[in-house]
Amino acid sequence: MSSHEFYMQLALSNAQAMKGQTDPNPLVGSVIVNHNEIVGVGTHLKAGEPHAEIHAIRMAGEKARGGTIYVTLEPCSHHGRTGPCAVAIVEAGIKKVVIAALDPNPLVSGRGVQILKDAGIEVETGVLQEESERMNEVFNKFIVEKIPFVTLKSGITLDGKIASHTNNSKWITSTEARLDVHRLRNENLAILVGVNTVIHDDPELTTRIPNGRNPIRVVMDSTLNIPLDSKVVTDHQAETWIFTSENYNVQKKLQLEESGVKVFVAGEARVNPLQVLKILGDNLISSLLIEGGGTINAAFLENKLVDKTVFYIAPKLIGGQNSPSFFGGTGIEKMADAIQLQNMTVTQIGPDFKFTGYPKYE
Amino acid sequence: MSSHEFYMQLALSNAQAMKGQTDPNPLVGSVIVNHNEIVGVGTHLKAGEPHAEIHAIRMAGEKARGGTIYVTLEPCSHHGRTGPCAVAIVEAGIKKVVIAALDPNPLVSGRGVQILKDAGIEVETGVLQEESERMNEVFNKFIVEKIPFVTLKSGITLDGKIASHTNNSKWITSTEARLDVHRLRNENLAILVGVNTVIHDDPELTTRIPNGRNPIRVVMDSTLNIPLDSKVVTDHQAETWIFTSENYNVQKKLQLEESGVKVFVAGEARVNPLQVLKILGDNLISSLLIEGGGTINAAFLENKLVDKTVFYIAPKLIGGQNSPSFFGGTGIEKMADAIQLQNMTVTQIGPDFKFTGYPKYE
Repeated sequence: MSSHEFYMQLALSNAQAMKGQTDPNPLVGSVIVNHNEIVGVGTHLKAGEPHAEIHAIRMAGEKARGGTIYVTLEPCSHHGRTGPCAVAIVEAGIKKVVIAALDPNPLVSGRGVQILKDAGIEVETGVLQEESERMNEVFNKFIVEKIPFVTLKSGITLDGKIASHTNNSKWITSTEARLDVHRLRNENLAILVGVNTVIHDDPELTTRIPNGRNPIRVVMDSTLNIPLDSKVVTDHQAETWIFTSENYNVQKKLQLEESGVKVFVAGEARVNPLQVLKILGDNLISSLLIEGGGTINAAFLENKLVDKTVFYIAPKLIGGQNSPSFFGGTGIEKMADAIQLQNMTVTQIGPDFKFTGYPKYE
Repeated sequence: MSSHEFYMQLALSNAQAMKGQTDPNPLVGSVIVNHNEIVGVGTHLKAGEPHAEIHAIRMAGEKARGGTIYVTLEPCSHHGRTGPCAVAIVEAGIKKVVIAALDPNPLVSGRGVQILKDAGIEVETGVLQEESERMNEVFNKFIVEKIPFVTLKSGITLDGKIASHTNNSKWITSTEARLDVHRLRNENLAILVGVNTVIHDDPELTTRIPNGRNPIRVVMDSTLNIPLDSKVVTDHQAETWIFTSENYNVQKKLQLEESGVKVFVAGEARVNPLQVLKILGDNLISSLLIEGGGTINAAFLENKLVDKTVFYIAPKLIGGQNSPSFFGGTGIEKMADAIQLQNMTVTQIGPDFKFTGYPKYE
């Protein structure tokens, strides 16, 4: 590892540690080095508070002068609460700036670098860029596309099934894997299921870990078939938003709204997944976890709307040509057109295997 | 690692290196140590040649006296070409014997140890026992059950599919994974497919690696529906054995036999998988690789006849509730009764993941 990467890794580690507390801002970390000595470390703690570079410059004090600053994201060029970071770097007398990733917002990307260069500061970009971009994958998508970053999670058998032919599904994965799912829920602002999951399982869809944050519970339900006594309607542990089509049952909509549930119309005959994402984005929901059955999963995958997949694969076989697959629907016609998953990582969780990947759509 | 394990590992490595050349004998390795010095190494090279202990004793010569012999399998008590190894150990003046695994044959298991103990030799068993038993898993099953050790191999998408809904399947896995399949074929004495695979794909089912050994090609075909011009019938690259039911087409049987194919009747209305294994066992086929479609795989899995599973999982999704699953049929009713795979190992092969496991049947 070059020393550039060493310092950037420290900046990334500090940034990463704030996961979950900076929303809607990205994770950013910074390190200042002068004469081979670390003189300042900074990280963005919370929206409304100083950016990472400002904390690092304050810690370094006079030792920032003549030093090199490492920052995981391009210093900002806009006037926020603490002024543009690029200007603060110039004023601190820093000589060199090493950046992992440029600002993902095309409207401002490169402007911070320009301010620095105009002031005669040496700028190097792209050090651990992929790591920085992955760390802010949710932020980076949302700032550009204004729809949530979509993670599809499924617990499956090694033969790709989410239930037996009699629809028995308890349990496929281990308690360790199910605990990990609660961590995933904690990281997402909303969680989506289909109405059939609510009818069959009556889940709470809450985050059951200490200090867990409950995501908004999103249900796709074309005709408002959801039972009024289901937990997501009655328990008020978290908000519940139901997305329906123009075919909705008018009286049921009133009853649901009386129960405190929000109802959105998104689609004509059936709920349209992209319209759901657009409405969620309009409501500043930047991250969505899909825990659907085979039909919901297929709707999002076939429409190329899934950004990341997380599979918990249990080392067991249930079999059955008619047992439900996690990716139902019609499926893709040719193997050559299959959805490729990239940047796969595999870890063992209890007896199960967690596969994380990023679909690449042609 | 204790020094016992160190020496036993050396014996295992020497044994393992002979894989494929000792049939029908097991793999066995041996090491003799005297005053902390390795004085002899032996391995069983080939059926009809000396056992591992004899080679090691010959190499050690006079230095065997007073030493400790490590052997991966219990020394034999029967009179083969070189006399019982247990007696040879006694005669060599060895003081201590360390054994990984006892003889799997219940008729003789423990007899070698008894001879040694009766001669006043100290005996320790169970050092790296599991590794030794795994190494000879084929031999160990066959010697006891007289039916082949069955490995089921399948190349599947991450959603458990072996083809798209239009039955397109070229290719699911990478060239690297497909090369590994040829190594698997090389290790098995027979390879089994269903007649539908022959009809749809017309495969050669040969081992395409340098110095590869072609397994006997076994086709399950209840009515002798196999095309007479299929490669496994006409190419004579390896033997082809067809297993049919009492429903077979008499004329077709004669035609197939004229083409040099053997036809066995194993089952009444349909081919019975256990009868197939019994007939293979009667013909000294100790290892069978199943490369079936979903129906064949289900027939063997549901009848609890698969000893080992090897899955090559491609990081791609094809989807479709009706796309063929590798484990078809009806499947198992309750998740709690799913077939558990034990001793899972995962390795990456090219872009794919190879999962090896051992089904545990309730």
